[in-house]
Order: sequence, then C-alpha cells, then structure tokens
Amino acid sequence: MARVKWLAAPSSPAWLEQAIAQPELLLIDHAHCERKAAGVALQLMFRYPSEVGLAAALSPLAREELEHFEQVLQLLQRRGASLRSLPAPAYGSALTAQVRKGEPQRMLDSFLVAGLIEARSHERMALLAAHSPDAELRELYGELLASEARHFGLYWLLCEERFGRGATVERLQELAAAEVAALTGDLAAADQVRMHSVGIDLVS
Amino acid sequence: MARVKWLAAPSSPAWLEQAIAQPELLLIDHAHCERKAAGVALQLMFRYPSEVGLAAALSPLAREELEHFEQVLQLLQRRGASLRSLPAPAYGSALTAQVRKGEPQRMLDSFLVAGLIEARSHERMALLAAHSPDAELRELYGELLASEARHFGLYWLLCEERFGRGATVERLQELAAAEVAALTGDLAAADQVRMHSVGIDLVS
Repeated sequence: MARVKWLAAPSSPAWLEQAIAQPELLLIDHAHCERKAAGVALQLMFRYPSEVGLAAALSPLAREELEHFEQVLQLLQRRGASLRSLPAPAYGSALTAQVRKGEPQRMLDSFLVAGLIEARSHERMALLAAHSPDAELRELYGELLASEARHFGLYWLLCEERFGRGATVERLQELAAAEVAALTGDLAAADQVRMHSVGIDLVS
Repeated sequence: MARVKWLAAPSSPAWLEQAIAQPELLLIDHAHCERKAAGVALQLMFRYPSEVGLAAALSPLAREELEHFEQVLQLLQRRGASLRSLPAPAYGSALTAQVRKGEPQRMLDSFLVAGLIEARSHERMALLAAHSPDAELRELYGELLASEARHFGLYWLLCEERFGRGATVERLQELAAAEVAALTGDLAAADQVRMHSVGIDLVS
C-alpha cells in the first residue's frame, strides 16, 4: 500500500476491495466529495474575507474541484448513471468536531482538516488508479489524484505561513490520529462504500 | 441608459456618478459579488443534488464567477488595494425575503432572484464600461458584463425548462418589481456605493 505523508495509517485492502466492487456508487460519492471540497474552500474564503493571500489561493482550488466534479458527472452520464444524494459517512462530521471554536485555532484546524481529507482522497484514488479493473476509472483516478496532492500541499502551506512549522506539525499529528480513528471500524457494518467510509485496520 | 431585459427599471445617473467617484470601493464590493454569486450557485447545487441537469449548468457558472473574482482581486492588488469585508447593502436580504418557502416555488424564486441579481450587475457594469473615466476599468467591466448576461440567460432557461414560460414570466414580473423596490431610495442616505446599492429614480 502506498503511504501518503500526513496520514497516520494507510487504508486497508478490504476498503479497496469494497470500492472496486461498487464503482458506480463510489463515483457518485466522489462527485459529491469534489463539490463539497469546493464548498469548503469557498466557505473558508467567506469566513476570512480579509485574510491576505487566502482567497487568491483558495479560489483556483475551488475552481479545480468543480472541474473535477464536472468530469466525474460526465463520466456518470456516459454510463447512464446520475447524481443522487447519498447518506454521508460519519467521517466529515467526526473531523469537523475536532475543529476548535476560538481563533486562530479554528483557522489552523480548518485548514488541516481540509488538507487531511484531500490527503485521504489522494491515497484512496492512488489505490484505485493502481488496482481498479476498469481502465477508464484507472485513468480518471490517475488524472485526478495529482491535484489532490497539490491541494493538501496548499493547505499545509497556508498553515505553515501563518502558524509556523512547529505548531502546524504538532496539531497535524493530533488531527491525523483523529482522522484515522474516524476511519477505523467494522467494514461489514457499513454496507455502502464511500470515498471516506471506514477502512483502516486496527493496529494491534 | 441601456435597458436590460428582465429589469423593471434602469439605474439612475446618480448611482453611476457615485460609482465613478469611488472606483476602488466598488471594485472591492464587486469582488465580493463575484464570490457570492459562486456561493449561490454552489448552494443551489447542494440544495438540489438530484435535480437533473442543474449541477452540469451551475458548476461551470460558479467556476466562471470565481475566475472573475480572481481577476478583480489581481486588479486590486496591482493598485495596492486589498480585499476587506464591507457591510452589504440591504439588496441581497430584501430579495432573499421574496423567496417562497415551499417547493417547487422556492426553486423557481431562487433561480429568478439569482438571475435578477446577475441582470442588475450586467446593467451596472455596462454603465461603467461605457462611462468610467478609467480605461482599465472600462475594459474590465466590458469584458465581464457579457458573462453576466449569459448567466441571467442560464437562470432563465433553468426556470423555463422546469416551470414553463408562462409561470416564469409571471413570477419574474413580481420579483423584478421587488428588485426595483429594493434599489429605490435616498442615495444620499447610503454614504457608500455598492454594485447593488440604491440608485433607481422613483417613477412619479
């Protein structure tokens, strides 16, 4: 399994197996993820309108997420599938709950959580790009995963510029542990796979 | 004054005069408007995730608004100004208050209100493109106003496809009257100009 910097533990082979077995469901969830990622970037721009350099960094990121959203949407349409709402896994809310309320901690945590989600997407897309039996999907995921890597690099930079390397690494380690905890659980209990559904083996 | 289809009354020469006198303030507000327009498109995509054809129409629109946001941001930076939050004029909330709560009326009204805001932006940018004494601003507004025109056309189409021409025109006329009411008022009372600050003469 590929290791991605930032992540405290890799996804399990069981997640990959489940993801490969339900490619269309994963595509629909993936489309929602791209759209949500654009929404998060916009939300941060709205929350910190006067933060120097923030909008100039996040607006192109949001545009790129929307481009990916459209790309996945077109693939779905070519396959006769369409976007529908899906119950979200607990992952997003578990991570949001980690964001501290007061500033500037809230800003640091929000950037790191957004970055961790991109990092996990990157890791899982890399697994799919390498192991999906569907050539078109291997190509899609291979094409998109490079952006996810750039995006978590961008969130990292936004943190480091504002909070320094030491404080950023320290908080990242705590949040990365929480991220793993949010993905550790009984795979069988979750009947439907998601880009961020459980799928990390308990380290014994 | 140019007349824009959809709008029930044109902006007054007094608004234009005020806008020309405070170009930097208007640019900052304009940047916020582009970002908000992207936010509205994304919000509609989130609210109606299963609505066929909606995301495919609104996602490129949101990307384009963000491109314009970045363009205005860069111009501000070249002029040594930067983004800061501004108290919003009453316009947005006055229009939002017109949106009916139940579906499908809420969808129709939301599309029409978003379209009317684009239409007003288009009209005011056309005034600035024609009359600003600043060549760079004339060029910027001239470049952007064509997109605003396309955007209100797109919202119109979203309505017509779903609600038919008759129902769309009927509700549009009511909302266009409310839009004019939201911009009719004492210009002197609003000390700071905005893209959507008051500036329509009372028809006697």
